[in-house]
Amino acid sequence: MISAESKPLDILALAIRSEIDAARFYQKLLIRVKTDLLKQKIRFLLLEERKHRIILLRLSRQRFGQEPSNLPDQGIEPGFKIDSTRGMEVVELFQLALKAERGAEAFYREAKERVEDSLARQILDYLRRVERSHAALILSEIELLKRFPEHYDVAAFHLGEDMVHIGP
Amino acid sequence: MISAESKPLDILALAIRSEIDAARFYQKLLIRVKTDLLKQKIRFLLLEERKHRIILLRLSRQRFGQEPSNLPDQGIEPGFKIDSTRGMEVVELFQLALKAERGAEAFYREAKERVEDSLARQILDYLRRVERSHAALILSEIELLKRFPEHYDVAAFHLGEDMVHIGP
Repeated sequence: MISAESKPLDILALAIRSEIDAARFYQKLLIRVKTDLLKQKIRFLLLEERKHRIILLRLSRQRFGQEPSNLPDQGIEPGFKIDSTRGMEVVELFQLALKAERGAEAFYREAKERVEDSLARQILDYLRRVERSHAALILSEIELLKRFPEHYDVAAFHLGEDMVHIGP
Repeated sequence: MISAESKPLDILALAIRSEIDAARFYQKLLIRVKTDLLKQKIRFLLLEERKHRIILLRLSRQRFGQEPSNLPDQGIEPGFKIDSTRGMEVVELFQLALKAERGAEAFYREAKERVEDSLARQILDYLRRVERSHAALILSEIELLKRFPEHYDVAAFHLGEDMVHIGP
């Protein structure tokens, strides 16, 4: 995804475009999800991707005296770029997200190898690790979505809200 | 941490105590942290641990017709049980959290092996996975805290807020 000719500012532009796509993706996913615990996780991912864009823009200004003058049409992972979530199951959207987060992790690993600047390397390495933790978080939800496909509700776990409390 | 004599309800009681300790720990950590992005992560962890307690209480009621009548004094991981964060660096608190999340992951793995009920096994397995994703998330922050120990600020990355924007 990064060619031998990619300049550092191009790599940053690609990363920024990807973070924008990722945030938009999570925004769409948020609308589709009904349960509280899941909404909370997606909102967290959305906020993280937004912060990453800000971090990358700052790094651009610091190191190149400018933000990228234009961003590529395509981000790292086409998986984050979807027109609509219609016709897709929530679990499919999570699977897309998992693939895209893993792609982002691989991208940041490669990007780090392409830059020489020590601060930039540290930041790219941080972003790589964060995308990895997102993938782990998404994976745990996918397993649960698969096991409770019909009436997925993490908080209630089909235990029933109307359960009589007969405990002490 | 689980003995051969542990009954399923005792295991749940231990898990509930641990989730309470974990939530309290993150609440203390939240007060110590100044930067937005880090606060957001800790708030997320705090909410997750609270939800886990609710999930475990519901499971108790469903499977045993009661909540545990009393909770043990000690949770799984003594690391989450601290009287005060005074005198501790933020990075040390994160290291405690990492150790405790890994302990929780191991506990849920063992607990799952001890119960026969299929729903309970699925829930314990879910909790195990979530604790693992927490550990991954915390690990990425520790790396960053170590690299920027003095004026840690994820959002700004020492790039300076007063940087003049000379880009397009």
